[in-house]
Amino acid sequence: VNRAAWRGRRVLVTAGPTREPLDPVRYLSNASSGKTGYAVAEAARRLGARVTLVSGPTALKAPAGVRLVPVMTAREMLAACLKTLPSTDLVIGAAAVADWRPATLSRTKMKKGRGAPVIKLVPNPDVLKALAARRRKGKPVTAGFALETSSLLANARRKMREKGLDLIVANGPEALNGDRTRAVLLTRDGRSHPYAGPKAGLAAKILSTAEAFL
Amino acid sequence: VNRAAWRGRRVLVTAGPTREPLDPVRYLSNASSGKTGYAVAEAARRLGARVTLVSGPTALKAPAGVRLVPVMTAREMLAACLKTLPSTDLVIGAAAVADWRPATLSRTKMKKGRGAPVIKLVPNPDVLKALAARRRKGKPVTAGFALETSSLLANARRKMREKGLDLIVANGPEALNGDRTRAVLLTRDGRSHPYAGPKAGLAAKILSTAEAFL
Repeated sequence: VNRAAWRGRRVLVTAGPTREPLDPVRYLSNASSGKTGYAVAEAARRLGARVTLVSGPTALKAPAGVRLVPVMTAREMLAACLKTLPSTDLVIGAAAVADWRPATLSRTKMKKGRGAPVIKLVPNPDVLKALAARRRKGKPVTAGFALETSSLLANARRKMREKGLDLIVANGPEALNGDRTRAVLLTRDGRSHPYAGPKAGLAAKILSTAEAFL
Repeated sequence: VNRAAWRGRRVLVTAGPTREPLDPVRYLSNASSGKTGYAVAEAARRLGARVTLVSGPTALKAPAGVRLVPVMTAREMLAACLKTLPSTDLVIGAAAVADWRPATLSRTKMKKGRGAPVIKLVPNPDVLKALAARRRKGKPVTAGFALETSSLLANARRKMREKGLDLIVANGPEALNGDRTRAVLLTRDGRSHPYAGPKAGLAAKILSTAEAFL
């Protein structure tokens, strides 16, 4: 890592799941712990970057020196990221953004005994794709994650291309919890870098790989 | 509180939300923090009871001296409670058990781009009602919670009757997070006791009210 390349750089990290409400108490979400995103934010801060962490609900504390913007839904996450984007040098989308949300939000708690409801879903905005689509001359550098339960590398490469990313981290659902993880980092120039170890180590690996595109 | 009434008593507390999976990463859940249930477990332990805490996923540590049984789904919670029930003197159902679960569980992560899915739900077992239905001669004493966004006391009284409970704690969604809460304790003899303050105080109030039925 070249520390001089990071000093004062503005890094935007998304982390955690999003929660998509059905009613005042129920929601749709996923098992993301936020650990990888928080580790990336902390590692970037330690390299001297100015870090904004837009995070869905997690049990984690924001790393010291990082600006935390807490959000709940995918749409809130997108809005928060768009505010920060114009001055951003590097985006790392580690959040597990819900792909869909319930089509309707009940203002009162849905009652039992009226038959089992059917939840109609509608697509959420693809946060990282929306951010990548606003790039000008390849800036900001944009990295994402692909969580796949089948055809890991093929699905990850397709996502990198479709979303227009510089780098994608491919991993399986075993990455969601725990402190260790396994992943393969793929870059748009066709290289791949496998990783296995603690999430803090993966964070450092992501940053050193992204540095080449800064 | 009469401490002699609690010494060695077996208390079963449920706490937290349940998570009902749609696929390996997505789930349906609710915003219960588990704080009230954990506070009840700790208060009962301090009174000298032998406490089993059957808990859905929370960010909390189990209180010292309490036996923690971690579960994910409503069906796992029911199974864990049924194992402990025969030797139980008091059940306090503070968990926000999901009323429904997705009718089908996808073994691989549902993919985007095949249209927005519709989630069919099926009813979950009513954990507390199932436990109360197995009572013999009024044992174990059984207490529950009613989280309502409308007609609070009427809905809570109906739940107490339908589920066959000795005591029900009626509260609104503002009870789900934070350390303070507002509630009304209703007992099967028709009394009501309002409470406002920290969750630890509500826990003590629930136990002192339940003591009359032990």
